Amino acid sequence: MRIDGLQYCNWSEKVFRQMREGGVDAVHVTVAYHENFRETVLNLERWNRWFERYPDLILKGLTAADIDRARGTDRTAIFFGFQNPSPIEDDIGLVEIVHALGARFMQLTYNNQSLLATGCYEAEDTGITRMGREVIREMNRVGLVVDMSHSADRSTIEAAELSERPIAITHANPYSWHPALRNKRHDVIEAVTERGGMLGFSLYPHHLNGGSACTLEDFCAMIARTAERYGARHLGIGSDLCQDQPDGVVEWMRTGRWTKGVEYGEGSADAPGFPPMPGWFRDNRDFGTIEEGLRAVGFRDDEVHGLMGGNWYRFFSENFGPGGT
Amino acid sequence: MRIDGLQYCNWSEKVFRQMREGGVDAVHVTVAYHENFRETVLNLERWNRWFERYPDLILKGLTAADIDRARGTDRTAIFFGFQNPSPIEDDIGLVEIVHALGARFMQLTYNNQSLLATGCYEAEDTGITRMGREVIREMNRVGLVVDMSHSADRSTIEAAELSERPIAITHANPYSWHPALRNKRHDVIEAVTERGGMLGFSLYPHHLNGGSACTLEDFCAMIARTAERYGARHLGIGSDLCQDQPDGVVEWMRTGRWTKGVEYGEGSADAPGFPPMPGWFRDNRDFGTIEEGLRAVGFRDDEVHGLMGGNWYRFFSENFGPGGT
Repeated sequence: MRIDGLQYCNWSEKVFRQMREGGVDAVHVTVAYHENFRETVLNLERWNRWFERYPDLILKGLTAADIDRARGTDRTAIFFGFQNPSPIEDDIGLVEIVHALGARFMQLTYNNQSLLATGCYEAEDTGITRMGREVIREMNRVGLVVDMSHSADRSTIEAAELSERPIAITHANPYSWHPALRNKRHDVIEAVTERGGMLGFSLYPHHLNGGSACTLEDFCAMIARTAERYGARHLGIGSDLCQDQPDGVVEWMRTGRWTKGVEYGEGSADAPGFPPMPGWFRDNRDFGTIEEGLRAVGFRDDEVHGLMGGNWYRFFSENFGPGGT
Repeated sequence: MRIDGLQYCNWSEKVFRQMREGGVDAVHVTVAYHENFRETVLNLERWNRWFERYPDLILKGLTAADIDRARGTDRTAIFFGFQNPSPIEDDIGLVEIVHALGARFMQLTYNNQSLLATGCYEAEDTGITRMGREVIREMNRVGLVVDMSHSADRSTIEAAELSERPIAITHANPYSWHPALRNKRHDVIEAVTERGGMLGFSLYPHHLNGGSACTLEDFCAMIARTAERYGARHLGIGSDLCQDQPDGVVEWMRTGRWTKGVEYGEGSADAPGFPPMPGWFRDNRDFGTIEEGLRAVGFRDDEVHGLMGGNWYRFFSENFGPGGT
């Protein structure tokens, strides 16, 4: 089983076919960066057209059972998520609405302060806001997973503590391996995983030791160390693959509508665009390579199965339905 | 000259006639609490209908010259403002748009954390956010005044420091007089007034020493002490008059769409609605009573003129147009 915890590609038949070639059973795809509710609905309409146009390649995923259905019919199940709470605007009532529309993950912040929590690019972090506490409770109730990939440390730890259900960092790596602002410190990973939450390892070059030159061996050895520390069952892949995106998209990701200036995020003035992927992970076709890499660093079969998708499958199956006993 | 720095009435011909009876030349009126951009435009449409229907009582105010025009024709100039940055949503481009539509004040927060700053009801305050810094610069450029009436202390002080133009606390009183969460501590008032900013004294009972039972003498003596400390020229009235509003409106003010629970704000479960106004300030008809009260505590004529409206007039004339030299 292969499940990717996050992708944001420029979707096309080519990408969907590569998912099949790579044996990818399910992907959590980003349907909003800074989009408001109405704009997010437009993005969902685009997905509806793709589902209608490529019924032999993809299907809409709402529960883990849809992954079984995808596997049984040689397709990829697409699960929706937001990298920012902008789709719910300032309205807690939209949490249930976006869940009904298929959203299954929502980051409480992108890089900046949101109405709910603090993003990792702010100078300081006050944790979960008044509205954030209310929204986490509502997300728990309906089955919309709290994702803290781009949030600041304290906000992430508080979210893990406040949430009655496990939360996720869908795409990031340990800070101890590569000290990028977006990678996660020990306390953060521990707070998430010890409560049943998940960490998806990112293949976005800015999150990799050595960037685009990072080796498969180094990446997999890092996963092995992380598994030793936090338990392999709380780990998966969240590739952060942004295939075929024009550089204008990374500008949108970084600046949204919050500034009139230029922001380089994890890039720089010299290298403002998307960085090239490592040679051993070009795109969806290369999930098998990662699987081989995991075996090579000594993971057992059951661990490899979990890391490549089994753990996300379990997490999806437990967290996408209504909460409560 | 009489100018009120903030009102949020249930507007009607009755209220507009009382403004004339009280000799009120200009009022900053709230056109958005939690409304998003489109909803704010609906509120502006309502005002357009009132301007069309009551041309002998009110006119739309855009610059201080409109106050002169109102005085010359025995009318009240209405200036628009927001108690929350919700009308600009997450879009800095909307700052110039709302200014073009007539907005002249925008609070960077209501009681909660916003995308720009921290509200006075949050447990902690990290000051102005990344987006907040950008938006303050844009507000300075177009001539939209930063209002921090409902913001937390650090956020307010940082806003005063970051803003290249004076800012306002349109409606609040000194915390030292009445320790309400919404009233302002010394450091905050000092940071605002020493940079040319304004404090408007509130008549909302929860902001008054003794609440609805507060005496005119006590209120005016407080103004005298505040003038001694910060200079009378930085002070005015911001009555926060919420005349004729049903209690459902105070629920909207407190809870907006951010919680599914009940919030009592400055009220309580026993007294959830709007509190009764003090007998000496029922509504717009009683501005003359305050003027008498100010004389009674020893203010000179020029000071009374400034406190009752002259100071706001100067502030409006300097801060509603484009910035820069």
